[in-house]
Amino acid sequence: MARTVYALNGPNLNLLGVREPGLYGRATLAEVRALCEAAAARASLACRFLQSNHEGQIVDWIHEAREKAVGILINPAGYSFTSVAILDALKASDLPIVEVHITNIHRREAIYRKSLVSLAATGVICGLGARGYELAIAALADLVARRAG
Amino acid sequence: MARTVYALNGPNLNLLGVREPGLYGRATLAEVRALCEAAAARASLACRFLQSNHEGQIVDWIHEAREKAVGILINPAGYSFTSVAILDALKASDLPIVEVHITNIHRREAIYRKSLVSLAATGVICGLGARGYELAIAALADLVARRAG
Amino acid sequence: MARTVYALNGPNLNLLGVREPGLYGRATLAEVRALCEAAAARASLACRFLQSNHEGQIVDWIHEAREKAVGILINPAGYSFTSVAILDALKASDLPIVEVHITNIHRREAIYRKSLVSLAATGVICGLGARGYELAIAALADLVARRAG
Amino acid sequence: MARTVYALNGPNLNLLGVREPGLYGRATLAEVRALCEAAAARASLACRFLQSNHEGQIVDWIHEAREKAVGILINPAGYSFTSVAILDALKASDLPIVEVHITNIHRREAIYRKSLVSLAATGVICGLGARGYELAIAALADLVARRAG
Amino acid sequence: MARTVYALNGPNLNLLGVREPGLYGRATLAEVRALCEAAAARASLACRFLQSNHEGQIVDWIHEAREKAVGILINPAGYSFTSVAILDALKASDLPIVEVHITNIHRREAIYRKSLVSLAATGVICGLGARGYELAIAALADLVARRAG
Amino acid sequence: MARTVYALNGPNLNLLGVREPGLYGRATLAEVRALCEAAAARASLACRFLQSNHEGQIVDWIHEAREKAVGILINPAGYSFTSVAILDALKASDLPIVEVHITNIHRREAIYRKSLVSLAATGVICGLGARGYELAIAALADLVARRAG
Amino acid sequence: MARTVYALNGPNLNLLGVREPGLYGRATLAEVRALCEAAAARASLACRFLQSNHEGQIVDWIHEAREKAVGILINPAGYSFTSVAILDALKASDLPIVEVHITNIHRREAIYRKSLVSLAATGVICGLGARGYELAIAALADLVARRAG
Amino acid sequence: MARTVYALNGPNLNLLGVREPGLYGRATLAEVRALCEAAAARASLACRFLQSNHEGQIVDWIHEAREKAVGILINPAGYSFTSVAILDALKASDLPIVEVHITNIHRREAIYRKSLVSLAATGVICGLGARGYELAIAALADLVARRAG
Amino acid sequence: MARTVYALNGPNLNLLGVREPGLYGRATLAEVRALCEAAAARASLACRFLQSNHEGQIVDWIHEAREKAVGILINPAGYSFTSVAILDALKASDLPIVEVHITNIHRREAIYRKSLVSLAATGVICGLGARGYELAIAALADLVARRAG
Amino acid sequence: MARTVYALNGPNLNLLGVREPGLYGRATLAEVRALCEAAAARASLACRFLQSNHEGQIVDWIHEAREKAVGILINPAGYSFTSVAILDALKASDLPIVEVHITNIHRREAIYRKSLVSLAATGVICGLGARGYELAIAALADLVARRAG
Amino acid sequence: MARTVYALNGPNLNLLGVREPGLYGRATLAEVRALCEAAAARASLACRFLQSNHEGQIVDWIHEAREKAVGILINPAGYSFTSVAILDALKASDLPIVEVHITNIHRREAIYRKSLVSLAATGVICGLGARGYELAIAALADLVARRAG
Amino acid sequence: MARTVYALNGPNLNLLGVREPGLYGRATLAEVRALCEAAAARASLACRFLQSNHEGQIVDWIHEAREKAVGILINPAGYSFTSVAILDALKASDLPIVEVHITNIHRREAIYRKSLVSLAATGVICGLGARGYELAIAALADLVARRAG
Repeated sequence: MARTVYALNGPNLNLLGVREPGLYGRATLAEVRALCEAAAARASLACRFLQSNHEGQIVDWIHEAREKAVGILINPAGYSFTSVAILDALKASDLPIVEVHITNIHRREAIYRKSLVSLAATGVICGLGARGYELAIAALADLVARRAG
Repeated sequence: MARTVYALNGPNLNLLGVREPGLYGRATLAEVRALCEAAAARASLACRFLQSNHEGQIVDWIHEAREKAVGILINPAGYSFTSVAILDALKASDLPIVEVHITNIHRREAIYRKSLVSLAATGVICGLGARGYELAIAALADLVARRAG
Repeated sequence: MARTVYALNGPNLNLLGVREPGLYGRATLAEVRALCEAAAARASLACRFLQSNHEGQIVDWIHEAREKAVGILINPAGYSFTSVAILDALKASDLPIVEVHITNIHRREAIYRKSLVSLAATGVICGLGARGYELAIAALADLVARRAG
Repeated sequence: MARTVYALNGPNLNLLGVREPGLYGRATLAEVRALCEAAAARASLACRFLQSNHEGQIVDWIHEAREKAVGILINPAGYSFTSVAILDALKASDLPIVEVHITNIHRREAIYRKSLVSLAATGVICGLGARGYELAIAALADLVARRAG
Repeated sequence: MARTVYALNGPNLNLLGVREPGLYGRATLAEVRALCEAAAARASLACRFLQSNHEGQIVDWIHEAREKAVGILINPAGYSFTSVAILDALKASDLPIVEVHITNIHRREAIYRKSLVSLAATGVICGLGARGYELAIAALADLVARRAG
Repeated sequence: MARTVYALNGPNLNLLGVREPGLYGRATLAEVRALCEAAAARASLACRFLQSNHEGQIVDWIHEAREKAVGILINPAGYSFTSVAILDALKASDLPIVEVHITNIHRREAIYRKSLVSLAATGVICGLGARGYELAIAALADLVARRAG
Repeated sequence: MARTVYALNGPNLNLLGVREPGLYGRATLAEVRALCEAAAARASLACRFLQSNHEGQIVDWIHEAREKAVGILINPAGYSFTSVAILDALKASDLPIVEVHITNIHRREAIYRKSLVSLAATGVICGLGARGYELAIAALADLVARRAG
Repeated sequence: MARTVYALNGPNLNLLGVREPGLYGRATLAEVRALCEAAAARASLACRFLQSNHEGQIVDWIHEAREKAVGILINPAGYSFTSVAILDALKASDLPIVEVHITNIHRREAIYRKSLVSLAATGVICGLGARGYELAIAALADLVARRAG
Repeated sequence: MARTVYALNGPNLNLLGVREPGLYGRATLAEVRALCEAAAARASLACRFLQSNHEGQIVDWIHEAREKAVGILINPAGYSFTSVAILDALKASDLPIVEVHITNIHRREAIYRKSLVSLAATGVICGLGARGYELAIAALADLVARRAG
Repeated sequence: MARTVYALNGPNLNLLGVREPGLYGRATLAEVRALCEAAAARASLACRFLQSNHEGQIVDWIHEAREKAVGILINPAGYSFTSVAILDALKASDLPIVEVHITNIHRREAIYRKSLVSLAATGVICGLGARGYELAIAALADLVARRAG
Repeated sequence: MARTVYALNGPNLNLLGVREPGLYGRATLAEVRALCEAAAARASLACRFLQSNHEGQIVDWIHEAREKAVGILINPAGYSFTSVAILDALKASDLPIVEVHITNIHRREAIYRKSLVSLAATGVICGLGARGYELAIAALADLVARRAG
Repeated sequence: MARTVYALNGPNLNLLGVREPGLYGRATLAEVRALCEAAAARASLACRFLQSNHEGQIVDWIHEAREKAVGILINPAGYSFTSVAILDALKASDLPIVEVHITNIHRREAIYRKSLVSLAATGVICGLGARGYELAIAALADLVARRAG
């Protein structure tokens, strides 16, 4: 059975493609999901792609991933900047973690610039739109392979 | 069918009238609801009045309002000061938004003074107790009418 | 004789409707005055509506209101952010005070975000344009009635 | 029937004993529960021991405790540093509250040093591992007795 | 003809004795004036005692004092914390200057703690109520005498 | 009739040449006026040269300039660092504005370093003494000509 | 011979029970000493209980404890917030250290909130009054036993 | 027997008159003592005049003054800016307290500008040299008389 | 002829593989170059791979890229955090820009956390080692194609 | 032989007229050079006009100017905000120095607002575009003449 | 008789060689004393080598050194970062002063990085272990000789 | 062949002895070089003494020193406070490093007080003028000997 990576999406990402498309682009979350699944398949991985507006739910999924996954892609969206709970959950995992942001958060207003989650991530990709998800899956595949190697 | 405004209430507001009445007043949330519904009715609007202690639930309702409502009244209570997720949900809406606080938050301790949610609100009313909700409904009715006009 | 509320307007508000209408709206100060007087009349109050570019003048009027008025509406404009003198004058009054801002100051540049005057206000209304003045008069009428009650 | 204290545990504490044991120790949450129940029994109290990764759930339990408990032990974990909602819920209670942290948070990285929840706690115990829970139950028993006395 | 000291009083001091007497005491400005005149007389000085709510007026009086006075007592009240104009006017004088505050401003809220005017004062007396004015006149008399000596 | 530029001078500049000449130079305000009028004449402009210690007066003149002038030279002196009212008045004008400071404010104490007024100025000249006024008139003439062109 | 724990008390604690009893409680230092000695005895430990207003004396006692004690309880009182010397002395010891504060320092004014000493403590107990000392002795006994174990 | 005021002097004041006389003046501590004793005598008070370079000693004397004195004059010198212990000792007293500084500390380098001790003082006098001590004794005499009255 | 992307490397990257390999990995700059050239070739691009310890040289190359390249990959290393000159050079280009860091800079010491260069980048990839360069080339290829499309 | 002023231009100014013309204007550096040379000629001065992207080169030229020039015009561009080396080089010169910025840096983003170089400049001109260079040459001519006089 | 330098050592230095030897090295204070005495002898100086944990004692010795010494070597240890009293005592001396730290304090945690004492030192040597004391004696000898010369 | 230490000097040090001699002393860089070479010779070391105004050049020399030297003396002058590139280059070396400053930078203006380079230095010597270079060579000799030993 294929090993799995979790792709976790935080609050408001269910509106992707609809919400402020000038900022976040026109790809919908379903399209991003398809990109991720294809990228994972290319690396012989399965991808469990999830979204929630609830911080606690995301913490629960990260705990679940400890048992069931070989890596985590996470776009914590609005929780990036405020959630110590998600940060702690990621720290409690010893999986490779790639954090993704659709936009280049460093060019945005001050409250969007400092992701707490980055303190637990292996790597961070931002500003490359939906394409950033694909690169993150590729990077995770590498990191997983290196560990297995 | 009457157009609807959503009136969303954040954490601990279920205790209104009971919790620190010297600070928050003696009106209960049920009484505030009645005031809002009456004020909405006077402006030929329906009012969907909701409360939750869960940040994610409030985000979900704001998304729902994008489809079903013509305006949002929100008292984010404790999440005012910490929730980028609610801020982003409101930004993703293009409805008129009036933020209400029972107390004058600018006179309180430092952690209660800087509402993130105000960055997405059309207007803000604070310090006028339960009366502030009525004024907010009136203001929303105006804003809705002006758009429709 | 009708009881009176003072409606005090700070610097540059004489240019209302003319100055940056995209930001401050197209209502002139004379129109706002008319709105206030009508709203006051509806609550059986008189309204003394004044404007000055001089900080000391505004302090003088606040002192005068201590004797002659039952409540104060104040839009301190540029002095909101710098005048301890106006703050102290308001503190020395024990009248109900409603502070009004045409714009949502919390969404503006940093120097416009922190009103000192709010430290002495009973309530604050911002971002609702000229309509905010009417709501403020209504709120003052309530506060006056509750005291009298 | 024995009077009850609530022992509330925040996000990621379900992983206790497993997550970063060098930092958080090897006792599991089940073992901590047993320690608390025994300590409560010694003081003729019942202990309702709960854990959730959801901020709103913890707020709900604190509200419930207002009706059903004589005191609250809380380890808010990651929410200690970010939750005004939990702070407000605790403030709305007039029960004795003892906050517990497994680690000495004052020796950790900056984001773990300033607990908002401490602003509502009667007392705080940190850095004493699972033993801190027992001491907290003992302290709560005292505080409860003193009130009853 | 007796040499003169100017005693300048800033905004809201016309309300002294009336405004927040628990904080500012019960002596009125007229009584403080009498104390100052008597203290000056004891030192063979005249005292020109003035009050204004207008920052510019106080600047004008300081300029006038350059020509007509041998020393300045100033209680800048609310302008203490915001007026670079008064600071500059005092710096442009080479008279001895004693700054007086009725209250101990260092124990008050943050905005009342940092007097800009102190950067130009010879000495500062605060927290001693109306008595502080008398001591300031006595100190000025000394400083004047020392220069003359 | 010649078009006019307003040259507005803030508090304490009436003492120019007298006050701290080591810092501000020996030219008096009358001499600076003569320089400005000559420089304006060379550019076929009239110059209305004014000074006040009153913030509100300066705001009034800026409003007046909206109707009667083609450009504004302003040395706000002590109000540079504290007056949002003057900043707003200038923003409400759409004239070219050149701010002048006699001294290089960037080399002075911290409170003199950050001019609020610069946020509304087209250009700023500082540290060049009375000569800076002449250059400012020349720059204004240019800016006026370019608009007219 | 019984092993000993040092219980060190900082400045002004000699006034305990007398000074601001509303804040610090009514137990005197002699009573706290008795509580500590009894708690130590229950754990088969001796307790050397000391107080000084001199920072250097407390440093000396910490050095002494390195030779003669198996653990340190310390309430550094006013030195908590300012003494790098005490912090360094504690760091130079490898004994278990429990810091105690009578009040919940996190709810006090800003200068009382950040204990430097906590950077060297094993655990911290605050806000539980004299009872906190007993709990600290119990915690020390545990820590000592665990090391010996 | 005459009632007594304590006049407490902090570190380095034994060097007064010798150390940086351009800054601190030429009066020696013995001369200041004589001035204080004379001023006290004029008010029928005794004056116990003390100096120490040891923070703990000053705390001890403040405790002693609680029993033996009717008021405290204190020049905490270098400990003004760093000693929470002295602040706490003064707070534990309910005597009138006048803080004195030889220089105008508000005009000095940043580390000398913020006296912690002022948080407990009734009044503060600074910048008036040795004369400030005399004024402080006079002010204390008043405060003592008012209490006794 | 193939279109070219510039891959610019800042100070100390010539030591890659040698310097702190635990932090920066064991791949040498020559190996990174080979990876980039291969990745570019896969996307039918040429890659001009350069390194300099001189800030001005990097600015010169960015200017050159304006004429000769279709995209820029840049690892500014130590200049990331200090160079407004490089930031301005990149802003003056309208090419797609991907910034790469070998390490996750958000987990490093404070001085390494805030890249000025990110303010001009289209996207940022960090923490993925030499692999990050390959992903950046792939992302650039996409961005170039999208523009051309 | 004519005396010479150096006109030194920092990084990216070689792109003037091309780079962000909406911000920096359409005049090229060659045109600015012509303006400067003409302005210098009018004042019987020669002008050595130089540009470099290398900080060290600019330091070298400032050293050279100590020997060969009578004044320095400098637009340090991106180095304004980061170069202590240029600041020190200018301080080591005793020539008159006029700093020029094309844009009004005080209205730009935070990183462009605080020029270190201003700490060494005689005067500063900003926001007046290429015209600012001409005014700076005129001001330098004055300053040179005054010294020579 | 040989002229004398004082070598003053602050709190916890009595534990040198014992306390955290990985950080502070293995040389004991007695060994450091021997090094200093030998170095002083080589320069024909006597060395009075002292240590105290009491801030006031160190102030006393500095006062004594004013009379009896030609220079001061001081390692203020924990008092470096908190003692305005020691800073003032050193300022009151006009002897050459060399401050020594065993470790490179600039590489340590934030509270150890900013020595107040450096504000009064002629020179500072840190990070060179016990060897730093020898170099400091050598430097003092030079400074003494230069004054004498 | 003698082992070599590099002595690297940053921007503007070529002007030593000429530039602000009141601050930096009268010794020229050539004289400092002679002192260093003599000191090195006394320790049987060669000294390669270099100066550049170019940050990149200094980085290059530090890289070179990795191969050719046994230790580095560096006076980074103006780059001390701004260069992460030099910091990183030094970190990449595992040689002993002694940083030297002619002046006591801790007593200078704020921008000169925080050397980034100190984060990589073994030891730092400042405020001892040219003599500091000699002491630094002596210290380096020791550090080299201890490693070799």
